[in-house]
Amino acid sequence: MDYNAEALKKHKELKGKIGISLKDSLDSQDKLSTYYTPGVAAVSTYVADHPEQARDYTWLNNSVAVISDGSAVLGLGNIGPYGALPVMEGKAMLFKHFADIDAVPIILNVHTADEIVSTVSAIAPSFGGINLEDIAAPICFEVEDRLKEMLPIPVFHDDQHGTAIVVLAGLINAMKVTGGDLSKARIVCVGAGAAGTAIMKLINLYAGPEILAVDSKGIISSSRTDLNDDKKMLLEFTNKNNVSGSLADALVSANIFIGVSQAGLLTAQMVKTMAKDPIVFAMANPTPEIMPDIAKAAGVAIMATGRSDFPNQVNNSLAFPGIFRGALDNKVRKITDDHKIAAAKAIAGLVENPDAEHIIPSAMDEQLVPAIASLIV
Amino acid sequence: MDYNAEALKKHKELKGKIGISLKDSLDSQDKLSTYYTPGVAAVSTYVADHPEQARDYTWLNNSVAVISDGSAVLGLGNIGPYGALPVMEGKAMLFKHFADIDAVPIILNVHTADEIVSTVSAIAPSFGGINLEDIAAPICFEVEDRLKEMLPIPVFHDDQHGTAIVVLAGLINAMKVTGGDLSKARIVCVGAGAAGTAIMKLINLYAGPEILAVDSKGIISSSRTDLNDDKKMLLEFTNKNNVSGSLADALVSANIFIGVSQAGLLTAQMVKTMAKDPIVFAMANPTPEIMPDIAKAAGVAIMATGRSDFPNQVNNSLAFPGIFRGALDNKVRKITDDHKIAAAKAIAGLVENPDAEHIIPSAMDEQLVPAIASLIV
Repeated sequence: MDYNAEALKKHKELKGKIGISLKDSLDSQDKLSTYYTPGVAAVSTYVADHPEQARDYTWLNNSVAVISDGSAVLGLGNIGPYGALPVMEGKAMLFKHFADIDAVPIILNVHTADEIVSTVSAIAPSFGGINLEDIAAPICFEVEDRLKEMLPIPVFHDDQHGTAIVVLAGLINAMKVTGGDLSKARIVCVGAGAAGTAIMKLINLYAGPEILAVDSKGIISSSRTDLNDDKKMLLEFTNKNNVSGSLADALVSANIFIGVSQAGLLTAQMVKTMAKDPIVFAMANPTPEIMPDIAKAAGVAIMATGRSDFPNQVNNSLAFPGIFRGALDNKVRKITDDHKIAAAKAIAGLVENPDAEHIIPSAMDEQLVPAIASLIV
Repeated sequence: MDYNAEALKKHKELKGKIGISLKDSLDSQDKLSTYYTPGVAAVSTYVADHPEQARDYTWLNNSVAVISDGSAVLGLGNIGPYGALPVMEGKAMLFKHFADIDAVPIILNVHTADEIVSTVSAIAPSFGGINLEDIAAPICFEVEDRLKEMLPIPVFHDDQHGTAIVVLAGLINAMKVTGGDLSKARIVCVGAGAAGTAIMKLINLYAGPEILAVDSKGIISSSRTDLNDDKKMLLEFTNKNNVSGSLADALVSANIFIGVSQAGLLTAQMVKTMAKDPIVFAMANPTPEIMPDIAKAAGVAIMATGRSDFPNQVNNSLAFPGIFRGALDNKVRKITDDHKIAAAKAIAGLVENPDAEHIIPSAMDEQLVPAIASLIV
């Protein structure tokens, strides 16, 4: 199927993908008087006096805002708020389909950290949770940190943590297949934006392996003079021997390649310099850092991508529905690192007998949401 | 029915009144690939390149934000954002039920004009229209004026204009019943907040009658030293003879009393000093400025209130659904005074043979939305 043509056709036909539904009809004067004036005044008065019970009388118990400023949409870059809206409506569909959560797309026409933080905090009482989406690094880090600190509801930047959770789940199962030990692995991560940074942080917390971070200028090391604060922070746990060099240099004898960067960055020649049974997560979208057939021919043992038409799809939809379902149901105010690691283990645990082409469960697996949600407590 | 008890019971049982619905299911990989990645990228790219067509590919063509800071909720006053949420969810129900519009409640925890304007303008790309609700005067005037100027979508403060439109509709029909002429009427309006100000402005534009505005300190006149800018503006078209005095003074020989103030403010004694066949719109909620039985006994010819259990309910639900339906369908960027007057005439025109107890159609009248919407062009 030509998804581009089909998508343009269906979006125009439906004029958007989501709407508002009512939990009861308004087909009598009694119902109008119950759900609107005069009856609603009793509910408003009660909730104003007991704000901690607001979620029991309103949709706060099940609503999430999907918020983006359009500055890093999919692989398309900074395409602005209107370009972001179809993606955010799609994300709202995923929330409803996978976790029965009522998600509202909110697109912003402000782009500084201060403006995003003050806007989101101003509208936060409207929602039970905040899913930040497609906000460019490094602003996304500051925005999430500040909102998590300020708000009494869960705030989760899915591009960072959703991806990190699923990558960790895949690596846990990859180790079962190869018999390796993640804590002793040598890992190279290419791309030090939102997803790459979160992936490296979560893997470090889980297993503390040797990690080299690589960006478009090469290995991130203390010899570099062009690093912003977020990249400097990576040196707290990566590149302990302070090596310098290119991606090719970094990959010599590495066990695991993790790419959240650009199409075609990883060559067969580089793969051949890696250690035995190399593992490659090539997640650039829509075209991976290396195509699976080339990788396999060069000796890759286990391969994952971001695509649904290859085995082992690293798909955020495995993580965020269960994370938010659990946070809303269990009234969790902060998604912690422990929650993320628990979710990764739960996702990995749903693959009963992992093999090279099955290290990650299907996003359609109905056990995913309950398995993860029960751990977000 | 005890609406308070029923409302508390139903709101707790349903846990809020609205949710998100999907326009198509996500039950296959093909649909996931059409509505989310990779297909959605084609839609996002197209919309980013043609932002003026965003509404054809997203829910912008049918979505409205119902925005309140909770500073003037119903008759309850400043009860804050959580107390406002049940009302805004109820308003979203009305939008869906009456006009099939997808309205999202957005409650704010900021309260200055600057903060409200910058928050609403930051999230405005998410919606096809903005319905401001229950924001206290005088801030509501500045907020609406600035947002109307800034935003390319309709902005409508329903407490002002919805009420004004329905009051004008009622007065048009009341004149048919009494045989009076609105342009020659003497009108006293008590309450110079959001609704009162808008009512007086719209009546003045429509008929230019003699109007006295009265607030808690008495008749608004240029002799007063306590007037804010919004009340001073009323002197441009009210109180042309610059009289001073109390509500009782104002009412002597008046034809029409319009109350958006407090329970019990209008006494039978005052009514008896009014001109022949007095018309009383006593819209304080939940208890009117004068109860209908007392008013009738004192000689009132036509009586309207805000309540559904008396004849002639002045109900905003008669106006805003059709106004927004028309604005969205006809891509109208600004709701003008001409639109408001046209809507009032259309509402009045739906009562075929007005009499003292039938000057305003029922909110359930299915002709309302199409009749109004066709005029918002």
